[in-house]
Amino acid sequence: MTASKTIGDYLIEQLQGHGVDHVFGIPGDYVLSFFDLMARHESLSLINTCDEQGAGFAADAYARVRGLGAVCVTYCVGGLKIANTTAQAFAEKSPVVVISGAPGVEERLNDPMLHHKVKEFDTQLRVFQEFTVATALLDNPDTAPAEIDRVIHAALRYKRPVYIEIPRDMVTKECPAHHTHPQAEETSDPESLKEALAETAELINEAERPVILAGVEIHRFGLQPQLLGFARKMGIPVASTILGKSVISEKSPLYLGIYEGATGREEVRDYVESSDCLIILGAFMTDLNLGVYTADIDPGRSIYAISERVSIKHHHYDDILFEEFVSGLYETNIQPRTPGTLPQPPTPDPVPAGNGNDPITAKRLFERLNGFLKNNTVVIADVGDTLFGANDLLIHEATEFLSPAYYASLGFAVPAAIGAQLANPRHRPLVLTGDGSFQMTGMELSTLALFKLNPIIIVLDNKGYSTERPMLDGPFNDILPWNFSRIPEVLSAGKGFHVTTEAQLDRALDNAEAYQDGFSLIHVSIGRDDRSPALLRLSERLAQRVRK
Amino acid sequence: MTASKTIGDYLIEQLQGHGVDHVFGIPGDYVLSFFDLMARHESLSLINTCDEQGAGFAADAYARVRGLGAVCVTYCVGGLKIANTTAQAFAEKSPVVVISGAPGVEERLNDPMLHHKVKEFDTQLRVFQEFTVATALLDNPDTAPAEIDRVIHAALRYKRPVYIEIPRDMVTKECPAHHTHPQAEETSDPESLKEALAETAELINEAERPVILAGVEIHRFGLQPQLLGFARKMGIPVASTILGKSVISEKSPLYLGIYEGATGREEVRDYVESSDCLIILGAFMTDLNLGVYTADIDPGRSIYAISERVSIKHHHYDDILFEEFVSGLYETNIQPRTPGTLPQPPTPDPVPAGNGNDPITAKRLFERLNGFLKNNTVVIADVGDTLFGANDLLIHEATEFLSPAYYASLGFAVPAAIGAQLANPRHRPLVLTGDGSFQMTGMELSTLALFKLNPIIIVLDNKGYSTERPMLDGPFNDILPWNFSRIPEVLSAGKGFHVTTEAQLDRALDNAEAYQDGFSLIHVSIGRDDRSPALLRLSERLAQRVRK
Repeated sequence: MTASKTIGDYLIEQLQGHGVDHVFGIPGDYVLSFFDLMARHESLSLINTCDEQGAGFAADAYARVRGLGAVCVTYCVGGLKIANTTAQAFAEKSPVVVISGAPGVEERLNDPMLHHKVKEFDTQLRVFQEFTVATALLDNPDTAPAEIDRVIHAALRYKRPVYIEIPRDMVTKECPAHHTHPQAEETSDPESLKEALAETAELINEAERPVILAGVEIHRFGLQPQLLGFARKMGIPVASTILGKSVISEKSPLYLGIYEGATGREEVRDYVESSDCLIILGAFMTDLNLGVYTADIDPGRSIYAISERVSIKHHHYDDILFEEFVSGLYETNIQPRTPGTLPQPPTPDPVPAGNGNDPITAKRLFERLNGFLKNNTVVIADVGDTLFGANDLLIHEATEFLSPAYYASLGFAVPAAIGAQLANPRHRPLVLTGDGSFQMTGMELSTLALFKLNPIIIVLDNKGYSTERPMLDGPFNDILPWNFSRIPEVLSAGKGFHVTTEAQLDRALDNAEAYQDGFSLIHVSIGRDDRSPALLRLSERLAQRVRK
Repeated sequence: MTASKTIGDYLIEQLQGHGVDHVFGIPGDYVLSFFDLMARHESLSLINTCDEQGAGFAADAYARVRGLGAVCVTYCVGGLKIANTTAQAFAEKSPVVVISGAPGVEERLNDPMLHHKVKEFDTQLRVFQEFTVATALLDNPDTAPAEIDRVIHAALRYKRPVYIEIPRDMVTKECPAHHTHPQAEETSDPESLKEALAETAELINEAERPVILAGVEIHRFGLQPQLLGFARKMGIPVASTILGKSVISEKSPLYLGIYEGATGREEVRDYVESSDCLIILGAFMTDLNLGVYTADIDPGRSIYAISERVSIKHHHYDDILFEEFVSGLYETNIQPRTPGTLPQPPTPDPVPAGNGNDPITAKRLFERLNGFLKNNTVVIADVGDTLFGANDLLIHEATEFLSPAYYASLGFAVPAAIGAQLANPRHRPLVLTGDGSFQMTGMELSTLALFKLNPIIIVLDNKGYSTERPMLDGPFNDILPWNFSRIPEVLSAGKGFHVTTEAQLDRALDNAEAYQDGFSLIHVSIGRDDRSPALLRLSERLAQRVRK
């Protein structure tokens, strides 16, 4: 222990020590003194969004790119607005630190009815316990540093959100300058790890045609190099789930494409399902990832490793760390092999010159975007045909695709662009959003403008909730048409383009690429019934459940 | 019991039976079959908003006006977006029925990872238990009707939100056509009621200068006529809290104005605090209602009745219904009296002709709006100077003022206008919102346009989070300036006006009044430091706590 410091300063130092240089949020009186303190730390940037929901999504994207993110809001009226974004971070394993201001400890005496209070003073804390892996109420200066350490450690260990509530009279309270106790380092049980790796090697060696199915945890645990090294050394091809899209460069010769059961590309399905040894690494076995349960995967010929456990055929190991298992694969006695011909994703056409006056279609848009991707493009797709169509985009480098492909909350993409570009300013986000999802959170363009960011936003306008129409249609799927490309006039910022033909799309993309000083919004109007083949297959599956 | 019907039909019938003709929400696959069922009921209108948050606020406003409201959303990605709006409805006693779709009972077997699932299948249910008075999971057709009855009864009894989760495979399941068991009618203990009323009469008769302080529960329980009848018969003047503003017509000769301790009008404070018998009816004793604890109210000379209890001086009755107590006051043996001169709110000037080119100020705006109010105007104020400035508006008839004056969540006003006008189409809302709160939810103008509603929206633009600046200022209080009046061009609907001078305000109001076919948005630009005196007093009080 050295000299004391304040609880607020300690929290800020710990965030910065773990790579958090930007905090997203909106101030309010219960959190104002902490905002003021953050603003005094010159190396920390405060990013105030239009609505707290935007801050929550931005922090989630930042965490996916940086490895840790933070959102800071006021008590209840701010915090409860990000219940959904935090639930998404939990479901999809994104380590977001939620910091909420709160009434002071002294103000809480005698249980008064302070503004923003819902029922009890701990109502918000209890709500966040439902979708975080650790929570702390910093009401005691003596324990606050250890509590901060514990909670941030949990976020990093489990790649999931945590919650810190700081009563406003605690922000400037002195606390022991607790030097981070290193939390006891967890390791695998060495005998279990050895046994599981030996079993894995044996199964792979016995197999004719092993395949790796890679999921998003490869990305969350930063294991892309280990995955690629292993696949290359052993000559084993790799498919990925939708949520895991881009865990390896999609231009790699070992890459097969997205596997998603009957709703994905047929050749990938055949290749994966006919494999006699499937090595599933860090994939969530969710309905959308698996093509709404059309996946036909036999556990008897599978190795399945995720952060919670490792399963081989029908038995399980509970004491193996995911990262140690994946890293250990490289050193096993697996016989390298040369894979035969792989059903690789089709190379995108080099933008065939069509008739410029043809109406633009979803299919053509994605073909054209495939040629538009650069090495510094990060693709951020909202839920809907923007996500399913985006499956066909060939991502150049690893981890340049962000999407809520499991939890599937609409409205993620525009605010996520704020977080993604601040987390890695080398990247220029290409945002794919629908007209419905844009209407939820798209005005966070304002935040992009305020902080001078320059993503390119494609609004794929198919005139309502198009994913739902094939399931069950009705007036509830209709929304007001917006002139999205006029929004820059409201904000006095950015550039807007309205596209109805192929030639207009080409021009808009060229202009957007050349315009570096702000965001570009490209409104692409397609027909009401123009859907990608992937979406049609998927919604047919979903419809069976809706109509049941 | 008569013939059977489906669970979905039963729920819809019960909602309609209690006056719910509009349901706010956004569809999603888990709730699609219920949306489809609702759409088939021609007398029920589905109002799909831009974001679920807007639907939550709209349903809250609808409930405040109609006595019951409903919001219908999909599982988790929809439901958790309205955690905050439901918490507000709980805190401010607004009876909203939250209906969420959910995975089917059969789909839940073996605990699969379905899309939108956070942790456990009951995660969302448990979150809503934190801010509702009753919850039901309709997973059993035999008990579903009774469960629906129980939950809706609780919403009506306690004037607070309730939660109903309907697994999608239950929507069309047959259930007994349960004819509403009338829930056992609660009544007061007759002896307690008699004793409390007698005590009250005695205290009032002994007093020189009794005063009624009326709060929002008068409105929630529909007791405005009883309150006014009692006050008139006995000649007792009435002040109201901010949250209760407009529980009686503010043009009534017995109306004193808003009481809010040191932050309100001095004459009202003196009159109320020097009273020797204060009759507090349905007021929440909250910090903002009481001028951040500057109120000086002596329980020893007070009668305090709310829905939870009746207190007289220092003793309490727990078995008296609020509505029976308030209704009973009329028949007590209180000696009618003639009140002396009352410190009534100043009558607004009949719009003195100023210099038209003078820059518009907050003060002038509210003066001008006072002359603009009609008998069919319902004023909806967002939090900020729009709320505090609105205190000085003289509301013509009872219950024509809506605002989240206790929970104080920003972004309420525009979506609330949707709910308020649909709940009472005779009303034309006058919405007062700030630039900050508009940026949160203001694009719900789109929903106003989609459903052809015609509120007049004033955006009071003081260039950022102006309520916070006097407490602690920093760049985090700055936001991007928007050209709000250009938004109609994005929506191809409504009319926009930008006002910087007095003459422009007059013209914009005239035009907005004449334009009946859609919304009008009036962007009023005032100085960054132009605040109402009420806000300055309030934020000075709040600042003391922030800086503590």
